[in-house]
Amino acid sequence: MRVGLDVGGTKTDAVAVDADGEIAGRLRIPTGWGPDAVAQTVLDAVRALGSEAGVDLSTVQSVGVGIPGQIEPGTGRVVHAVNLGVDELDLAAAVAPRLGVPVQVENDVKAAALGAHALHTRGGAPAPGSMAYLNLGTGIAAGIVSDGVLWRGARGTAGEVGHISVDPNGPLCRCGQRGCIEAFAGGGAIAERWAKRSALPVRDVFDAADAGDPSARQLRGGLARGVAAAIRVLVLTVDVDIVVLGGGVTALGDRLMTDVAAELAASAEASPFMRSLHLADRVELLPPGSPAAALGAALVGAEGDATHDAEEALVHG
Amino acid sequence: MRVGLDVGGTKTDAVAVDADGEIAGRLRIPTGWGPDAVAQTVLDAVRALGSEAGVDLSTVQSVGVGIPGQIEPGTGRVVHAVNLGVDELDLAAAVAPRLGVPVQVENDVKAAALGAHALHTRGGAPAPGSMAYLNLGTGIAAGIVSDGVLWRGARGTAGEVGHISVDPNGPLCRCGQRGCIEAFAGGGAIAERWAKRSALPVRDVFDAADAGDPSARQLRGGLARGVAAAIRVLVLTVDVDIVVLGGGVTALGDRLMTDVAAELAASAEASPFMRSLHLADRVELLPPGSPAAALGAALVGAEGDATHDAEEALVHG
Repeated sequence: MRVGLDVGGTKTDAVAVDADGEIAGRLRIPTGWGPDAVAQTVLDAVRALGSEAGVDLSTVQSVGVGIPGQIEPGTGRVVHAVNLGVDELDLAAAVAPRLGVPVQVENDVKAAALGAHALHTRGGAPAPGSMAYLNLGTGIAAGIVSDGVLWRGARGTAGEVGHISVDPNGPLCRCGQRGCIEAFAGGGAIAERWAKRSALPVRDVFDAADAGDPSARQLRGGLARGVAAAIRVLVLTVDVDIVVLGGGVTALGDRLMTDVAAELAASAEASPFMRSLHLADRVELLPPGSPAAALGAALVGAEGDATHDAEEALVHG
Repeated sequence: MRVGLDVGGTKTDAVAVDADGEIAGRLRIPTGWGPDAVAQTVLDAVRALGSEAGVDLSTVQSVGVGIPGQIEPGTGRVVHAVNLGVDELDLAAAVAPRLGVPVQVENDVKAAALGAHALHTRGGAPAPGSMAYLNLGTGIAAGIVSDGVLWRGARGTAGEVGHISVDPNGPLCRCGQRGCIEAFAGGGAIAERWAKRSALPVRDVFDAADAGDPSARQLRGGLARGVAAAIRVLVLTVDVDIVVLGGGVTALGDRLMTDVAAELAASAEASPFMRSLHLADRVELLPPGSPAAALGAALVGAEGDATHDAEEALVHG
């Protein structure tokens, strides 16, 4: 059994995956704030899989953790996980001795890309030679999977398409540049510019745009343009077979996809070359509630073959 | 011995590469126009390596051809090689029976990427884990090499970064979109907008910009912005270790590089994230006259292991 955790800003999604790749147990717990509490969340989530989801912890071979931050390549060290209150944390070192099994840590979007690839293939579809998972959340980033393997890049910034500028006169991005894809299409940037308090600001924007609000229409148009730009970047640079969209903003479902399809159709109309790419046919939506990131984290965990000395091991103890 | 040919719009560059990867012979001949003449050029170039460059043709094991067009994946078929007057040509089928050795065909920029990778490594530098070769010629396109292997993508459009739009109000691109990187930085687009007859229009533009001509300054600024945008796209999407610039426009050398470095410095100044990428340190210029494309074509040829029946074989005959 392989455990995978998706440590999000508010909740942590935990799954146990059996030898056939099927999800044998799943639950969610709140995520703690700061390095110690995040490490404790990992331990609590694994324990809860045993006590509440009926997973036999003695059969667990590895734990993989997806986390919204930069991971130092080849280590279990997390840096700049600002949504978790973590500036720096050697998460693998903090929890592996307690868990008694190898622990691998990966950026959450990269983990979700692996998970989305596994879910796509499991759905009976032929395995794509290459796939990009484009995460539309507070920020915008992608993970690229080729022949089932995650493309990690030279320094951990592969898939950071959110900070490609597509308009020198566009809105200022939190990164400091103008007109980044994330400044147009990031849930955080849209919420900030909408500036009305709401649990679901992007949904508010869509509702207000439907009601004719001009600033909401502008924001909604920018979201579609940003997502379409990210899709074009991924296909024109890496030439992935398919682009799977996921993340919180995709809860808008068809309302979002209709706008994005219209943007892609407009560039196909303007350009025979773009038309030849059949972009609209290469975009898919991750089904809502899919455990892509936690499943992908379990797959990342299974990649590790390091052994760890156990002290008070929670899993094998 | 492996033969590699770079079939360009006016000249064809031919090399013979020995078992150590060293260039044992090199020459250039004019390229013919149209399918039959292009196939004949390939045969003539191989023959000339024997008669004029002292290559023992009986030792040739393969021929690889780089050509400026789309190659149907997994075949030797060229389509849309507009600069050669070729709409469609099964080049491998046309020349392999005459050559009597396996023939592989690849897009010229992708071949040059493999060659640039080999030249970089041969220069004594550690082999980069991943590299992009960004070709600045009439058009703009890149080839990506990871762990020494060319990234071909799903449908042959990997590296087509020239048609990513970076300004919705930018100049119209020949592809039909607005503000493509190629519309700013392609030698063809710049020559068209400069609209003064010249053998080296981009050099003219630099000279006129130095002399204070406002439209030349605008074109020159656009070139640097387009090249910098392509570098950002390659690093933020694929996270290559290094980006090697080559192609006709790079004959401008330091004059071009100074402008590009200033553009990269401006985004690093604006954005701590961009600063953390150290883009300027990751850009290299291919030395002028480097036989990257022909050398890469020889490497592509060596990838093939198909056997071909010989009839009147030129090489082994």
